[in-house]
Amino acid sequence: MPTSKRRHVLREVRGGIGAPCGFEAAGVRCGLKRKGPDLALLYSLSPAHSAGVFTRNVFKAAPVLITRDRVGRERVRAVVVNSGSANACTGTQGHRNALRTVEVAAEALGVPPRSVLVASTGVIGAQLPMRKIVSGIRRAAAALGPGGSEEAGKAILTTDTRPKSLAVEFSLDGRPVRVAGMAKGSGMIAPSMATMLAFLTTDAHVPSGLLQSCLARAVERSFHRITVDGDTSTNDMVLLLANGEAEAGKVTTRHGLARFQAALDRVCTHLAREIVRDGEGASRLIEIRVGGAKSQGDALQIARTIAGSPLVKTAIAGGDPNWGRVLAAAGRAGVEFEPELVELWLGQVRVVREGAVCRHDERAARRAVGGPEVVIALGLNAGECEATVWTCDLTAEYVRINAEYHT
Amino acid sequence: MPTSKRRHVLREVRGGIGAPCGFEAAGVRCGLKRKGPDLALLYSLSPAHSAGVFTRNVFKAAPVLITRDRVGRERVRAVVVNSGSANACTGTQGHRNALRTVEVAAEALGVPPRSVLVASTGVIGAQLPMRKIVSGIRRAAAALGPGGSEEAGKAILTTDTRPKSLAVEFSLDGRPVRVAGMAKGSGMIAPSMATMLAFLTTDAHVPSGLLQSCLARAVERSFHRITVDGDTSTNDMVLLLANGEAEAGKVTTRHGLARFQAALDRVCTHLAREIVRDGEGASRLIEIRVGGAKSQGDALQIARTIAGSPLVKTAIAGGDPNWGRVLAAAGRAGVEFEPELVELWLGQVRVVREGAVCRHDERAARRAVGGPEVVIALGLNAGECEATVWTCDLTAEYVRINAEYHT
Repeated sequence: MPTSKRRHVLREVRGGIGAPCGFEAAGVRCGLKRKGPDLALLYSLSPAHSAGVFTRNVFKAAPVLITRDRVGRERVRAVVVNSGSANACTGTQGHRNALRTVEVAAEALGVPPRSVLVASTGVIGAQLPMRKIVSGIRRAAAALGPGGSEEAGKAILTTDTRPKSLAVEFSLDGRPVRVAGMAKGSGMIAPSMATMLAFLTTDAHVPSGLLQSCLARAVERSFHRITVDGDTSTNDMVLLLANGEAEAGKVTTRHGLARFQAALDRVCTHLAREIVRDGEGASRLIEIRVGGAKSQGDALQIARTIAGSPLVKTAIAGGDPNWGRVLAAAGRAGVEFEPELVELWLGQVRVVREGAVCRHDERAARRAVGGPEVVIALGLNAGECEATVWTCDLTAEYVRINAEYHT
Repeated sequence: MPTSKRRHVLREVRGGIGAPCGFEAAGVRCGLKRKGPDLALLYSLSPAHSAGVFTRNVFKAAPVLITRDRVGRERVRAVVVNSGSANACTGTQGHRNALRTVEVAAEALGVPPRSVLVASTGVIGAQLPMRKIVSGIRRAAAALGPGGSEEAGKAILTTDTRPKSLAVEFSLDGRPVRVAGMAKGSGMIAPSMATMLAFLTTDAHVPSGLLQSCLARAVERSFHRITVDGDTSTNDMVLLLANGEAEAGKVTTRHGLARFQAALDRVCTHLAREIVRDGEGASRLIEIRVGGAKSQGDALQIARTIAGSPLVKTAIAGGDPNWGRVLAAAGRAGVEFEPELVELWLGQVRVVREGAVCRHDERAARRAVGGPEVVIALGLNAGECEATVWTCDLTAEYVRINAEYHT
């Protein structure tokens, strides 16, 4: 979470993913989804350093394999993204289609094919309709501009109900540097890679190696701390492009890097929380804090187990302060702790003390889980470590969406 | 799964949990649930050897701690079970209430208090209404009889829609031996202890040590292979009482033990499958078979991950042959395998070959996931090991039940 110290050097700016200098974006409709734009193009006026984090799923979609191979090695000029079809489990034809997508984009933009990255999201197992993709890429290339961020943000969505983006600015040596991002969820979201797509841009000048470690750190604190349904997709990726177009020059001093990291953390945390808030069928954002643990790993494991519990998530959907389910989930996390020392808070209401229910205001507890943001805090009283994760409630609407989302 | 070889020596008999010689049961209403019987009593005419398997949750309900302490050590005469209230996270008062429950039952039956076991299921965190419990136990003791099994089977239920029981008979030295059981689900069902209550009786004469290893083996093959929602409760237990009342005498020969184990496996597997079939909101039983794995552990881990995937379970709820979600779940199980070698079958329809979608009859695939029992088979083509687990689909009804089940 951003601290107030960090906050004062950061300010939000308009312009989304295209806000940093030298980036342009476009989103067009090529007919992969039932409606709305479904193909996005992101373009850097100059070759950019790149960093990426990818799904750990054994089944990796063709675009994941291609992009992973290029990130950090090639100077990147563009990213092409389609929604509606994941191009996963599509065999050699799927691989050829992903390569062709890249080639068409390179041709339309007049850049080398190896400088183009590709990402897909949507239904697994269908081959990409290449005619539509080719036509879409050409129109997107023609539509590129600083104002295309909004359409690009829409074009990467699947079951999301709204676009998610943020751009921030900080100053380095008195000159502005910007970091921006856009992301999509909203099912198959789980820790161990945030199971989603996020694209980040910055006009900072940061070499690839350093860029990769900054990104890994930011992802660990944000996208790795969220879960919607515990499922990890075949297509997840987070990409960060740094084109060095800002006047501030190279970010290499410890001070400069700290500012850059803070800006990146801020954008990633915002996008991660927005993904959960817009989780499939979600009606409430749930923040789960586990404190007093012997190690951060323990705290994280317990927090994730609570966040992954369907019984906790359905209780919150019903506005029910069912703390027993929270304790039951904590108790099966595979972490040893003393149940007699545990306390549990729903918002500002302590409901459990020394491992057992304590006297509390039941109406206040009910109010604490009835709003759009719910905070559940578990104290183990065993150590000094803590962790926070975010999830959403599990509603009948989640089931409806996923029972009807067609193969 | 029972093999045909085993099946021919076993036959199903009537009488439920009271079918083995020397066992009686009763179920009465004492007002813990909104309606129906909610207190069960199980009684053995002679002291029985006992075995038990218990929840691994850090938070263990008071009755779990008391019963775990007695099982295998004391000769058991009775088990008292209430539904409606779990007596978990209830502190020292909860512990005193569980002990008092045992004492009242012992007094009503005229047996030593340490020969009585206790189990509870229901809402976490509420204290037992002891006046109702005491009155219920006395009425149950008076109602005990060979015909009480049906009411006892109803009295242990919570959100289950129907009782689950089975009794089987095999012969040893030409004389009949019986094994019977009853169980309840139906939420908070997960592997690593089947998160439910099951009570098993037999008139075989098997000493406690041997009984415990037979039970552990049967549970590993049945209750540990099912999942409804991945949540493990604070109250799970499986108890087995063996009173030796059958004429066949001691079961100690290898041949006799094999027959006993087969009968126990049959009862446990039946109950486990029935629990899943009656999972909260379930409309379909899903059997997941993973074969061709390098180890049984690998096969089991992948099968469990598929069984636990909300996206797989919602797809099946919608009658959607969404094999991509099955592969995506398999791929995040934490097991290394070659995606290019994988094949996947929905019922009799092969939908994936060499890791990619293959030509198949889509209508047949849809039919394969549209019935009351769905079989999903994943072949890794990497080894000789296999595992089967059972789960159910995830419906909007599951969410409704769990959003409304009151704290």
